[in-house]
Amino acid sequence: MISKFKRLPKHIGIIPDGNRRWAQLHNLPKHAGYDYGIKPGFTLYETCLELGIPEVTFYGFTQDNTKRPAVQKQAFQKACVDAVNILANRDASLLVIGNSASPQFPKELLPFTSRQTFGRDLIKINFLVNYSWKWDLSYGLNNGPAQDLHESIASKDISRIDLIIRWGGRRRLSGFLPVQSIYADFYIVDELWPDFQLDQFYEALRWYETQDITLGG
Amino acid sequence: MISKFKRLPKHIGIIPDGNRRWAQLHNLPKHAGYDYGIKPGFTLYETCLELGIPEVTFYGFTQDNTKRPAVQKQAFQKACVDAVNILANRDASLLVIGNSASPQFPKELLPFTSRQTFGRDLIKINFLVNYSWKWDLSYGLNNGPAQDLHESIASKDISRIDLIIRWGGRRRLSGFLPVQSIYADFYIVDELWPDFQLDQFYEALRWYETQDITLGG
Repeated sequence: MISKFKRLPKHIGIIPDGNRRWAQLHNLPKHAGYDYGIKPGFTLYETCLELGIPEVTFYGFTQDNTKRPAVQKQAFQKACVDAVNILANRDASLLVIGNSASPQFPKELLPFTSRQTFGRDLIKINFLVNYSWKWDLSYGLNNGPAQDLHESIASKDISRIDLIIRWGGRRRLSGFLPVQSIYADFYIVDELWPDFQLDQFYEALRWYETQDITLGG
Repeated sequence: MISKFKRLPKHIGIIPDGNRRWAQLHNLPKHAGYDYGIKPGFTLYETCLELGIPEVTFYGFTQDNTKRPAVQKQAFQKACVDAVNILANRDASLLVIGNSASPQFPKELLPFTSRQTFGRDLIKINFLVNYSWKWDLSYGLNNGPAQDLHESIASKDISRIDLIIRWGGRRRLSGFLPVQSIYADFYIVDELWPDFQLDQFYEALRWYETQDITLGG
């Protein structure tokens, strides 16, 4: 399977949407869905490691999301903390990006707001936690301009994204890293994130191989 | 047909891609394709007017695009000037947005860099001409911060987009208005822009009706 890919993305963005809808379909309360989103993330992480993909960014939760009911907010905050704690026992260079000055940012994740390498430095994993595109893009406005626009945003340590894969059927970015997503190819998986299957991911990679790269040219 | 829509987007972004591929398929030189992109734009404009859609933004050309061969550059510059001149004889409140300080910006379009209303003020039409996302987002960095991020970008007079329709099969934004596209739903038409058919547009609107609106919440 793996040797079949001729051209792989260097950086993949993952929007793992559909946890609440999945929970409802399984007669669970909405907030119970997030816990079922952790295992798919690790299957995907292990596959990227195996394929040699250098960087993966996961959309954890946004400042917009924190307006949801408290029980849901606590559930997705916990899922992010759990995921990061598991990753800290694997091979990864880990960065958590988001507004860490806000009480919505889980304090357990503060040590990861500068990149920390665990095990072998084989793959960069970025987590967006209490992220907000307004917070990201306003950084330069509040901290003075840099030579390069990408250097003036709060998420400057996250590189340009080649391929964004969104689970759960919605065809939108929902505020996901606007600057890094400028030239990215979008692939939508209709299945909900807790129903993740490796074949969905391979299908996205096969589709990506067929796309040209123009970077807007 | 028209009365069938229960919920229409207030602002549609149009990425009219595929002119050069269309030309090649018809044994024409690549640059000849742009001219065939004007008529579809007006069919779409007239339909939006009829439907009462309040705002439409067309992706004319970008600063990235101006690195193409001179004959192509002249052809897409001319197509934009022609389109704006035709619109100036219709009902529209017209705005051309792009880096007008550059020699790549057609000087014939300078009068439209502030919004001009022609005929009845029934619809806002925005054209991105010599547009660049870096130029757009850097505006606030160079001109001092505003209270609101949307107010600090060069394209601040263009409102949030509900639905982006891209012709030509590519599934990417290619630098199209990153701030206004944050929560937009994307619809891809596989056909090339000069092969525009109204049914493609109606299909996009029907799909849009089935999407929920969360604005990231």
